[in-house]
Amino acid sequence: MDIPQPIISTVDIVLLLIKDERLCVTLSKRDKDPYENQEALPGGYIHAEEDRDCLDAAVRILRQKTGLLPPYLEQLKTFTGAARDPRGWSISVAYFALVDADLILSSANPGLTICPVDALRRLPFDHNEIIAAAVDRIRNKSQYSSLPCYLAGETFSLPRLQKIYEACLGEALHKVSFRRKMDELGVLEAVPGQTESAGAHRPAQMYRLKSEFKNQLKLLVRGL
Amino acid sequence: MDIPQPIISTVDIVLLLIKDERLCVTLSKRDKDPYENQEALPGGYIHAEEDRDCLDAAVRILRQKTGLLPPYLEQLKTFTGAARDPRGWSISVAYFALVDADLILSSANPGLTICPVDALRRLPFDHNEIIAAAVDRIRNKSQYSSLPCYLAGETFSLPRLQKIYEACLGEALHKVSFRRKMDELGVLEAVPGQTESAGAHRPAQMYRLKSEFKNQLKLLVRGL
Repeated sequence: MDIPQPIISTVDIVLLLIKDERLCVTLSKRDKDPYENQEALPGGYIHAEEDRDCLDAAVRILRQKTGLLPPYLEQLKTFTGAARDPRGWSISVAYFALVDADLILSSANPGLTICPVDALRRLPFDHNEIIAAAVDRIRNKSQYSSLPCYLAGETFSLPRLQKIYEACLGEALHKVSFRRKMDELGVLEAVPGQTESAGAHRPAQMYRLKSEFKNQLKLLVRGL
Repeated sequence: MDIPQPIISTVDIVLLLIKDERLCVTLSKRDKDPYENQEALPGGYIHAEEDRDCLDAAVRILRQKTGLLPPYLEQLKTFTGAARDPRGWSISVAYFALVDADLILSSANPGLTICPVDALRRLPFDHNEIIAAAVDRIRNKSQYSSLPCYLAGETFSLPRLQKIYEACLGEALHKVSFRRKMDELGVLEAVPGQTESAGAHRPAQMYRLKSEFKNQLKLLVRGL
């Protein structure tokens, strides 16, 4: 007989941000077994009676565990199997989200930890693998899209945006070609009259995403 | 209380092939309700007691419903929600697979139908949406990878491979630049002494994937 089997259905969220010029992930202390009190990705069961779909579940869980509604949330990949959860056969529909670090730090949730993606301990379940998939996706999309802009906050200077792209890509970029690519993307606009003091340098012009690109990625025909 | 809810957990497979120079999808007649006797994507419940993970389930379901083990199988996206299945809240982990048309046609399963992706009727569930996502993925990956080669069978001429790329991309390609890109990809090797008669033209050299690329995509730095 082909009948449904009891399968644990969850959502996990890889919430990424830039801290000290490094790509970091947000971990949340688990409040129940398995792995009680250990740090892991924010996640939880799908609630069939209240979530319309998994995206809805991801938004609910993020709000509950971090207090945030991040500007960018995308389905990453689904992790499944008999071996990944000690409770039994499970599905985790994983999402990744990008957020300005200031939002996380000001939300001041004591249960949250920010950890660089290249300095993670062994995490519960297959969460290291999920994070690695998210970092791959970010790295790939940063080559040819405006994705890293979602890590930059409301307004930012071009030097700061370049540092964010570099943290996502894991490599240094040439300033002149980076600026040419940003021009080509065409998603940024200068904030009139707003500059940032930059130490010994002259103040840097501040930029923001044009309103039409706040919820929509823009792609380059040729990558960075 | 945060306890798991009963959620229908399934796998669906978008099995793509080229027929008459068009990108087509394989539909399978449903043998039970809902939508009994209607054509839909091959799919089925995850069997927690026998499938190690969803990929395993996809391979099992493809074998059962089509008799095939396709050369390329990739997780596409997960489709979820309260509205997509009349039986209740459901998760479908969707995969796409690429196969040489001759394999499908010779498997001669009378329950299977081959339909061009741009000439589909309204299908059960959200299967039109799943197929559209697969076509998008193929179109995108065909721009910069060896993916369409998996649709070409064991051996093929370059004119035939170009037709396959064109069917995937939905646009005509320039012969000279197509061949330069194939050289750059470096995944093909000529089959010694094997040619294909080509009407009034001189016989075309036959090619195959180098063995190291039979199970591994190769990417172009710059797209087609």
